[in-house]
Order: sequence, then C-alpha cells, then structure tokens
Amino acid sequence: MRLAELSERSGVSTATIKYYLRERLLPPGRRISATTADYGEDHLRRLRLVRALIQVGGLPVAKVREVLGHVDDDSLGRTIRLGAALWALPQGPEPQEGEAAAAARTEVDRLLAALGWASARELGELSPVHRSLVALVAVLLRLGYPCGAELMEPYARLMHQVAVHDMDRLDAYPTETEGVEAAVVSAVLFEPVLRALHRLAQEEEAARRYGL
Amino acid sequence: MRLAELSERSGVSTATIKYYLRERLLPPGRRISATTADYGEDHLRRLRLVRALIQVGGLPVAKVREVLGHVDDDSLGRTIRLGAALWALPQGPEPQEGEAAAAARTEVDRLLAALGWASARELGELSPVHRSLVALVAVLLRLGYPCGAELMEPYARLMHQVAVHDMDRLDAYPTETEGVEAAVVSAVLFEPVLRALHRLAQEEEAARRYGL
Repeated sequence: MRLAELSERSGVSTATIKYYLRERLLPPGRRISATTADYGEDHLRRLRLVRALIQVGGLPVAKVREVLGHVDDDSLGRTIRLGAALWALPQGPEPQEGEAAAAARTEVDRLLAALGWASARELGELSPVHRSLVALVAVLLRLGYPCGAELMEPYARLMHQVAVHDMDRLDAYPTETEGVEAAVVSAVLFEPVLRALHRLAQEEEAARRYGL
Repeated sequence: MRLAELSERSGVSTATIKYYLRERLLPPGRRISATTADYGEDHLRRLRLVRALIQVGGLPVAKVREVLGHVDDDSLGRTIRLGAALWALPQGPEPQEGEAAAAARTEVDRLLAALGWASARELGELSPVHRSLVALVAVLLRLGYPCGAELMEPYARLMHQVAVHDMDRLDAYPTETEGVEAAVVSAVLFEPVLRALHRLAQEEEAARRYGL
C-alpha cells in the first residue's frame, strides 16, 4: 500500500508517519520510484505499536527505538528477547540499601523458594522486575505494613496463572516477533485493564459480602 | 504516649506530626495539660496511613483529608464506605464518547453478564472503576488491539480470586475502620507489588517454556 493508505488504515497522519520513518521507528517501505514506496501489513502493525507506546505509554522516541531494537533482535533466545524488550520499558523503583531492603530481600527469597520459581531465583536481581519487587516490599515494611513471603504467596500463585494465560496468548501468534510485540503492548496497555478488573472484582466481592 | 514517642515510633518528625494535626489529617491527642497531649495506638496507625498516602502515593493533603473522611464515616454501609474511600483515590481515565467507547461499553457489559457480577452490573458507570475499564478497553480497540469480553473473562475470573483474598484479609481486622484503612493502603502500596509479582511470573513462565 502507499503512504496515503497506510495513513488512512492506521489513523496516523502522513506527517507523523514520515517523522517515525526519519526516526527509524518504522522500517523504510519498498522503494518503487524516486518518490514513492510500498508498505505492507508489517508496517501497519508496527505503526500501531509505535503509536501505543508513544501516545498511550508516554514513552520518549529514544526509548521506543530501544524497545523495538530488542523486539527485532532475532539473534537472542526467546526468553531473553522477551525480557530485553520488557526490561527496556519504564520500570518500578530500585531498592535503596538499608535495613528494610535487607529484610525485603529475605522475604522475596523465601517467597521464590516456597513457590519453586527456579528461573526467577537464578536470574535474581539481574532482573529489574525482581529489584523493583524488593524495593516495593521494603517500602511497605519500612512503613510498618506486613508484606512477608506468606502474605505474598497466594497472590504470586494467582499471578502465575495470569502469566500462563498471557504466554498462551503470545504463543498463538504466528511469528516470534509478533509474540514479542504483543507482550510489549500488553505490558503498556493491558496491565491497566487488569488493574481495573481487580478493582471491579473487589467492588463485586464487597457487595456480595456486605450488600450494596 | 507523648508526641516525642509518637515521632520515634513512627519515624515521622515532630514538626511533620504537628503539621498533620493542624491540617486535621490526625485527630487531636487527649489533652493532659496546657502544653501536652497523649496519643494512642490509633494515632500511630493513622500516622502510618497518612505518610503512605502522601510520601508513597503522592496524594495532596486535601485529597488525603477527603479519603480519611470516608474511612471515618461510620454512618455509611460497609460496601459504600469502602467504595467511597477507594473512589476518592486517583482513578484511571474517563471514557471519551465516540465509536470506540460504545464498542467498549458493549464488551464490558457482555463481560459482566458472562461473569454473573450482578452488583457490578447494578452499580454500572456510577463506579469510576467501571468507567475507567470502559475507557481503557476503548483505547485498545481504537488502536486496533483485541480486548473483547472473551479475552478479558479468564483474567476477570482470576482477579476475582485475588479480590476474595483481599477481602478475607480485610475481614480479619478487628474493626471495620481498620479494614477500610487497610483497603486504602492496599490500593496505594500493594497494587504495585501485585504488578511486580505478575511480571516476575511472566519471566518465570517464559523461562519454563523457552529456557533461560
């Protein structure tokens, strides 16, 4: 398709598409004359992703380029490729060393042992997600709220069931690149949906227990 | 206990405690002379909550006062009291009317019908959580990503199991006020922990499927 059609089908203006092309957020089209190029379904899909990351996720252009670099890097193993793309997204807080961080680290270690999450234990604090969990638990403990391994365990087991669904969805994509793209979209756009479902479920459960 | 001990046990400076007292975020202590007052465990608990909302949640003082007003309002039924306190917290986006919002509304209605969440259906868009779910689904649909009732249903069922755990925890508090306080803390501090557990579970599951 030509630029005009790509613009119409994506709802993104031609000026913005040209900007994304210049910034290398979109691969160039197949050149068919000095002034025109041809774009395919891959361009349309990538354009949606770029728009989601910038307009909804609020990511700066340089960050989007970094994320896409990992998405496209098929020299990586699948787990690392997925991890690299997701880790390039904005992450939670980093742990600040101190008593609370040490206590939090102990609780997270105990949690992972109880769950039998061998890979998460092996990766450890190489993973920014792991570090951010330690930091969040440290904040709760420092403020005097309980957040021990026993409290987190049933939640972690349910979130693992959620992750199994996530991965089943990703596995259903025809190519690995599309699966990794979908994981990035999920992390930016679907996590807020999940949080809203959680809050709505709380309202439903409260009404069931105490009446409306 | 005296102000100095309240400060020591909470880790909040006496100047900050005095500021919270002036701003009516903390109820006054029991006056025992012209210049001293006595504070109880209730003050310590409330101080922790105020600090969590301001320092971690980033809520402005006026918003904290509004949330606490609902927490303390025992004239309300339990579900409404809980709802009022949670709804006063910062919420997600509001739906922008248009084609995508209409389609999103249809999907959310179908979802709630399939789940049999009668109270959530009855409350409908009176609930800011419901409105924000519609808005988020509309964004996904507008960008061309799937987010229909069938896709959301297994996630909603798992989030309901999470909510059952939440409510069991709240029910274990000795007083209704403490339960409502704990719900507010959870919404501000524990939701990020839940998101980190979800992401960590994704890493674990990816590694199990594709190797580390």
